[in-house]
Amino acid sequence: MMGAVLLSEFATEIVVPVCAVIGIAFSLVQWLLVSRVKLNPERHASGNSNKNGYSDYLIEEEEGLNDPSVVTKCAEIQSAISEGATSFLFTEYQYVGIFMVAFAILIFLFLGSVEGFSSKSQPCTYDKEKTCKPALATAIFSTISFLLGAITSVLSGFLGMKIATYANARTTLEARKGVGKAFIVAFRSGAVMGFLLAANGLLVLFVAINLFKLYYGDDWEGLFEAITGYGLGGSSMALFGRVGGGIYTKAADVGADLVGKVERNIPEDDPRNPAVIADNVGDNVGDIAGMGSDLFGSYAESSCAALVVASISSFGINHEFTAMLYPLLISSVGILVCLITTLFATDFFEIKAVKEIEPALKKQLIISTVLMTVGIAIVTWVGVPSSFTIYNFGDQKVVKNCDAPNFVRLGKVRTFNSSNSDRQLFLCVGVGLWAGLIIGFVTEYYTSNAYSPVQDVADSCRTGAATNVIFGLALGYKSVIIPIFAIAISIFVSFSFAAMYGIAVAALGMLSTIATGLAIDAYGPISDNAGGIAEMAGMSHHIRERTDALDAAGNTTAAIGKGFAIGSAALVSLALFGAFVSRAAISTVDVLTPKVFIGLIVGAMLPYWFSAMTMKSVGSAALKMVEEVRRQFNTIPGLMEGRAKPDYATCVKISTDASIKEMIPPGALVMLTPLIVGTFFGVETLAGVLAGALVSGVQIAISASNTGGAWDNAKKYIEAGASEHARTLGPKGSDPHKAAVIGDTVGDPLKDTSGPSLNILIKLMAVESLVFAPFFATHGGLLFKIF
Amino acid sequence: MMGAVLLSEFATEIVVPVCAVIGIAFSLVQWLLVSRVKLNPERHASGNSNKNGYSDYLIEEEEGLNDPSVVTKCAEIQSAISEGATSFLFTEYQYVGIFMVAFAILIFLFLGSVEGFSSKSQPCTYDKEKTCKPALATAIFSTISFLLGAITSVLSGFLGMKIATYANARTTLEARKGVGKAFIVAFRSGAVMGFLLAANGLLVLFVAINLFKLYYGDDWEGLFEAITGYGLGGSSMALFGRVGGGIYTKAADVGADLVGKVERNIPEDDPRNPAVIADNVGDNVGDIAGMGSDLFGSYAESSCAALVVASISSFGINHEFTAMLYPLLISSVGILVCLITTLFATDFFEIKAVKEIEPALKKQLIISTVLMTVGIAIVTWVGVPSSFTIYNFGDQKVVKNCDAPNFVRLGKVRTFNSSNSDRQLFLCVGVGLWAGLIIGFVTEYYTSNAYSPVQDVADSCRTGAATNVIFGLALGYKSVIIPIFAIAISIFVSFSFAAMYGIAVAALGMLSTIATGLAIDAYGPISDNAGGIAEMAGMSHHIRERTDALDAAGNTTAAIGKGFAIGSAALVSLALFGAFVSRAAISTVDVLTPKVFIGLIVGAMLPYWFSAMTMKSVGSAALKMVEEVRRQFNTIPGLMEGRAKPDYATCVKISTDASIKEMIPPGALVMLTPLIVGTFFGVETLAGVLAGALVSGVQIAISASNTGGAWDNAKKYIEAGASEHARTLGPKGSDPHKAAVIGDTVGDPLKDTSGPSLNILIKLMAVESLVFAPFFATHGGLLFKIF
Repeated sequence: MMGAVLLSEFATEIVVPVCAVIGIAFSLVQWLLVSRVKLNPERHASGNSNKNGYSDYLIEEEEGLNDPSVVTKCAEIQSAISEGATSFLFTEYQYVGIFMVAFAILIFLFLGSVEGFSSKSQPCTYDKEKTCKPALATAIFSTISFLLGAITSVLSGFLGMKIATYANARTTLEARKGVGKAFIVAFRSGAVMGFLLAANGLLVLFVAINLFKLYYGDDWEGLFEAITGYGLGGSSMALFGRVGGGIYTKAADVGADLVGKVERNIPEDDPRNPAVIADNVGDNVGDIAGMGSDLFGSYAESSCAALVVASISSFGINHEFTAMLYPLLISSVGILVCLITTLFATDFFEIKAVKEIEPALKKQLIISTVLMTVGIAIVTWVGVPSSFTIYNFGDQKVVKNCDAPNFVRLGKVRTFNSSNSDRQLFLCVGVGLWAGLIIGFVTEYYTSNAYSPVQDVADSCRTGAATNVIFGLALGYKSVIIPIFAIAISIFVSFSFAAMYGIAVAALGMLSTIATGLAIDAYGPISDNAGGIAEMAGMSHHIRERTDALDAAGNTTAAIGKGFAIGSAALVSLALFGAFVSRAAISTVDVLTPKVFIGLIVGAMLPYWFSAMTMKSVGSAALKMVEEVRRQFNTIPGLMEGRAKPDYATCVKISTDASIKEMIPPGALVMLTPLIVGTFFGVETLAGVLAGALVSGVQIAISASNTGGAWDNAKKYIEAGASEHARTLGPKGSDPHKAAVIGDTVGDPLKDTSGPSLNILIKLMAVESLVFAPFFATHGGLLFKIF
Repeated sequence: MMGAVLLSEFATEIVVPVCAVIGIAFSLVQWLLVSRVKLNPERHASGNSNKNGYSDYLIEEEEGLNDPSVVTKCAEIQSAISEGATSFLFTEYQYVGIFMVAFAILIFLFLGSVEGFSSKSQPCTYDKEKTCKPALATAIFSTISFLLGAITSVLSGFLGMKIATYANARTTLEARKGVGKAFIVAFRSGAVMGFLLAANGLLVLFVAINLFKLYYGDDWEGLFEAITGYGLGGSSMALFGRVGGGIYTKAADVGADLVGKVERNIPEDDPRNPAVIADNVGDNVGDIAGMGSDLFGSYAESSCAALVVASISSFGINHEFTAMLYPLLISSVGILVCLITTLFATDFFEIKAVKEIEPALKKQLIISTVLMTVGIAIVTWVGVPSSFTIYNFGDQKVVKNCDAPNFVRLGKVRTFNSSNSDRQLFLCVGVGLWAGLIIGFVTEYYTSNAYSPVQDVADSCRTGAATNVIFGLALGYKSVIIPIFAIAISIFVSFSFAAMYGIAVAALGMLSTIATGLAIDAYGPISDNAGGIAEMAGMSHHIRERTDALDAAGNTTAAIGKGFAIGSAALVSLALFGAFVSRAAISTVDVLTPKVFIGLIVGAMLPYWFSAMTMKSVGSAALKMVEEVRRQFNTIPGLMEGRAKPDYATCVKISTDASIKEMIPPGALVMLTPLIVGTFFGVETLAGVLAGALVSGVQIAISASNTGGAWDNAKKYIEAGASEHARTLGPKGSDPHKAAVIGDTVGDPLKDTSGPSLNILIKLMAVESLVFAPFFATHGGLLFKIF
């Protein structure tokens, strides 16, 4: 029944690591190119300006190139930001490290207790006739892969931050030569991060699988069950990264803006503002490190979800290694595709004017999607047998023989016929990939100030902040519609073709171009920081305008990146949810049973609880920041006149302390909910909670990040004054502009703290439930057992 | 097996209408008492001041009693408001009338087509051995009961509006004599509305059942299936009332505030503001008429849900009429309980100071809940047999014989043992009743400025509107937590005891004190209007302070009323959902099937889509209003100086046109979604949509209305300056106060338009699905049938 695949097991063992290494090499090359911009005043950075051969075409004039003091100043500021970011991340990692160890012990104890820490082999969960490794082994290897995932995630975030802080001053300096140059530097830096993360995540997973296999041998069921810990580790670090970083960055940002821009009427990023360094540090620890960890988590989890389903389907049962590693093969090809795509932005085409920035970034999405479609076709053709059987959880109602409970547990399997089963799998991955593109475009439409939604929001500033907020909230709500339909269609198509495996690979499809996604996503905060550095270094108005133009495009790409993150999170958590339900031996998750329904409604409430915590945290931390900034302006003589230096360090400390303290309650909520619900209420209620959190969280996440993005760009639209309409609303300092600033400030915690953390919430609870499923299935539901 | 009940069928036929008539009589007495306050300058209104015997104790001095011109002015303003409201409602009812007729035809065609318009009797749906009336009869009677529900709903809203406009000027005049007097008038007027609605709804339903029975005879299955149309009619009118009225009131309110308070610095309700009449009209058509229709709809639907479940359980199968009418008996006792409760506010105790208003209203909730607990115990004791069997939808997994699909359709029945089945039913109703009280108190805690949450929001105004909005949103999100747990526990308890019937009667328990709930709810807008009239009539600052104090308490009670409405809506729609699933012959609603899951995620999106529409509508209509108000201030000479009169009528017309036009798209979304999904995607996807909309909508509804209530009261907290802390934020016109006004304006559409409309969305889609279930079950899912 099983067809042979074109790609041999040996070839697979070569292809995956080679692609990962190519990705890492490419990212190093990009780093090298970025590092050519010297932060060294002696030899200024125009050395390589002719190498790309297009500087003549740039319409902007070069300026300020011969002022070495500016370069020194930039270098100083950059090192202050880098130091602040490094010091925050180290503090964060200390706390997170304690959590990591504690949680690792918890995993070991919970999973080890399933069979009473027995080291005897046992019958397999799904195939009772075979013998599998003991539950104790799964406990040990799950713990190891959890730690591996956690460390990889932390590393991803840290490296991303390092790259971003390395790049931002260089982007500022290149902005002296024009928008095009600055764009290339910012984009390349983003690419360094994107490729490093994608390749690193793939490589660690690949190595872990191969090492675990030495012990597990033929017991692939146990092997890939243990591997799911990798996803849990990645996601739990991402949670703290997103929440901690998000609170840090927005406390600083909101605090700096409220006193600086609103009360003191000084520009954004003015060096006189004591919170300005904290603000720029925040961009790097929140938007960069947090987002890096987040997308790494999504990637790790969707791979794990696909692997665990495959391991109990025919791929796993028949030990077809190449087909088994299909998820990793997709990611490998993804790296190659993104590599080519990147060249379109950096080498094949040139940015000559401000208005070309957004199209260039948009082209990245289109090109990578088109190329990846071909890539998926090839991988599916060479790596998937033409006929295979996929394990299907959610379809037990048609089970023919209802007297055999063991068979009910096994569920229905879905057999693909020989003529087109691989084509159907191609469609699953493809639908995820293209749904991602649609989500990206819809996000762009709702958050870019080139289109009417944001312009309408800007227009509503005419009547004040209140209408701005009302229109912005309405825009966010509206922006949910098409992405949800895209996700729903992806789910329906991929489930129809290959059950939960289809959904897992659809998520992987959406994430297959993660390197490009991360590159354009990281580009935003880098440009934002570059603008900050230009302002702080006292560079000319022109330079700031250029970085602002880069940043406006960056806001949109950041929103697009969040759209991808949320869309993929929805698919990933559904796939994990399916795997959990199967592993927990639930036959159906029937909404009409009270156990499930109360889970559903409480689960749908969790994103609100979580958002309440994170938003309040940002608000409180911002209030503290405001008081400190006001204090400094009032007590440091000559600060407003620029004669005295503010005390940046105190502001950095406020943000650090607040974010460390405030990340614990929301983190605990997410991490403890599955444990408490599973242990006390059992797997059915937990299944309800997961489904509720998923369908409710995805809406809030999309609307929050789009609302925030739209407000930010509505403000930028008024500031830039690029159209007749925009000029009637401006200039900076006008009443409509002030109203726009209020909207922007409200949007900050929505788009950078609570919104993006929510997709981690839904993924993390699902993967945690999956990892602990053996425990819940054995010992869960205490409360109902007692009564 | 069936025990006899103490209350005979004959007694039931007497008790229910008698209680309803008592309710109507009581409401007329209250009206009479209110009407003693004369809007006639010749004999001023102190005539009855000694009858209540406590005017001497009031700490406020009487003032302005001897100024007949004030009374004339109040009468003028009142008649302007009343005319505006009447004219709007007539316009609205014209459009709604067309819809009503069209939808009635649709119901007839869809339901008639189930058996091809055959007039032959057919086997019953649940009990195949018996013969039931033809589907055509169900189509006809469903259409009739739909029209009956719609007309009752329209009447409820209209009467409520008439009473409120009748009462508001009288409240103003009484405020001259002190807070206590004004409170009594406002509260009595609320009671008129509350009792009239509760009694009317009960009476019409009772009469309809008895009339339908003349045709249906022993076919109770068909009888109560047809009766569900009553709920659909009530709710669909409520939708248009809430949305149309909500847009009307908030367009006027936001528009008036943005120009008047923010730009022109004139007080709220200043007669120079051209939008002021529209604003006051809005309070009556939105908050009063809309809310009246809404709660009537909830009441009608929960009764219908309970009746339809009972009709296919032992009550219906054995034709136990008293037990069958248990839902109506609960409502009957509720009227008596509320009657006694009302006397506590109007006759047994007296309001002597401002600070006693809120406790007095709160006591109403507690007293009615305690008394009702006794009432339920009695009704359950005399009306429910000690042993009965309840049909249970959501538990088909334990069906023993899986080869008999007909049996699967019938589901599992739950038999109650003889010792305590009636006690268990008492617990179901009781848990709903007390959950309502808890939701009420939590709502009060989060929206009253006597507690820290609102004070924190007020405090955040120190740093501007942005932090105010952030804190307010976070407060709303947080306020969801406890109500959701209360709802979840009610669902679990009542489902465990009596399946879906338990949930339906739990909803009825929450709504059993509806007369009191409506009284304290209507009290709010009446006080609000009274304040407006005082301002417009140029009455002294003192009077305005008194009405403001009444209004502040009214904001909280309005929020509590919304809490009840949402909580009961959640329970009601779950019960309707259960009835739908059963009627549509779905065995399980398994989240893990793609058809259900896509329904779930799309359903969870609908409240966002709906909110986007309604908020945008308010925003756009407010913008138009702002332009008109500005135009009048700019072009009418002497308007600001009070020498010229503004053109109120144009503003009224703007609100009217906008609300009529803008209520159609959201209305269409809600009404068409079940039809489209059911017809094209089938009952399973529709079940998913209902569950998704329910669990997602309830969260947004609660958070939106609490956020708005909190912002409103934070503003009032600063304005009142009653504490040391409040005074540091004020006075009116200070920067924190301006920030608070922005929050209040943002909150307006949230708390009065989108939030409260959402509970209609979830109920209406459920009841519509139930009514059309026979059609969907026969002809639905076209799309999947084609492919």
